Amino acid sequence: MPTICIPLARGFEELEAITLIDILRRAKINVIIAGVNEEWIEGSHQIKIKTDTLIKNVTADQIDMILLPGGMQGTQGLCQNQYVQGLIKELNQQTKTIGAICAAPLALDTAQVLKGRFTCYPGLQDQIKSPHYEESPNVIIDKNIMTSKGPATAMEFALEIVKFFMGKNICNNLKKDLLY
Amino acid sequence: MPTICIPLARGFEELEAITLIDILRRAKINVIIAGVNEEWIEGSHQIKIKTDTLIKNVTADQIDMILLPGGMQGTQGLCQNQYVQGLIKELNQQTKTIGAICAAPLALDTAQVLKGRFTCYPGLQDQIKSPHYEESPNVIIDKNIMTSKGPATAMEFALEIVKFFMGKNICNNLKKDLLY
Repeated sequence: MPTICIPLARGFEELEAITLIDILRRAKINVIIAGVNEEWIEGSHQIKIKTDTLIKNVTADQIDMILLPGGMQGTQGLCQNQYVQGLIKELNQQTKTIGAICAAPLALDTAQVLKGRFTCYPGLQDQIKSPHYEESPNVIIDKNIMTSKGPATAMEFALEIVKFFMGKNICNNLKKDLLY
Repeated sequence: MPTICIPLARGFEELEAITLIDILRRAKINVIIAGVNEEWIEGSHQIKIKTDTLIKNVTADQIDMILLPGGMQGTQGLCQNQYVQGLIKELNQQTKTIGAICAAPLALDTAQVLKGRFTCYPGLQDQIKSPHYEESPNVIIDKNIMTSKGPATAMEFALEIVKFFMGKNICNNLKKDLLY
């Protein structure tokens, strides 16, 4: 089974993070929720989540993908944390999959891995150096980088990741279960 | 500001619960996350959430609505808990709003408040005594009872609740923010 690490920093967007974790786990993907600095992380709407481990304990060899939820404050935490930034760079060198939604593509830009086409929360592209922003579709996959726009596209993003790792059939069965 | 209590029992569906809490708080509705039996509650996909208080501390006078997320095990917890069942009955007597999604309309049926039209996760209606199940639309409002179908309809359900309490303009602005 593939393993995906989802790092959470204080101020992460809860709806995006939980939609991703919930749907990936429904597909039997191994998800590691990794705290940045703390083990209990409060999101941008005062919802506090227990993480599985701290990001400093996660290695690139252990995981098949790193996947960043949005939230402006949370994204700043992901930009500033050396372990998150180190993992993004190392996974990119190994051409393993890297994903980000909403404000979080900013953390990929900070790690200098955002070379191709990407999307993000509309307006946020002004803070990103990479010039290859596209407003649609809701999910963009370019080489090993998967990006998406925001809260209302989180479910579609999760399902695209399921399709990528687990195939079309498992994805379609999951869509039925979710009433998607 | 209206106050909505969302009780969480072990095995609750995280995506549904967090989508509701996140969106209601974005609309500046006061949300009380109330634990059933425990303060830290683990959902059906091993995501552990910190609650604001225990359900036994919440009174009907304090709140404008009780709103139940799904998850089969979580719903059984809501059916069996005297405080949850007592609150549902008391709110119904006061004709305050009561909501449930996915499997959770079963907990409204247990409290004998499901008298009118309702929806739920398809198939689950077989376990519900009330005969007024309808497969569509995604959200049904009948008198003071609001019900919805499952994970993929949670965002629409949250937005209908926002519209009901806060009006069309706030709901429409929120839709834009969410990219809905």
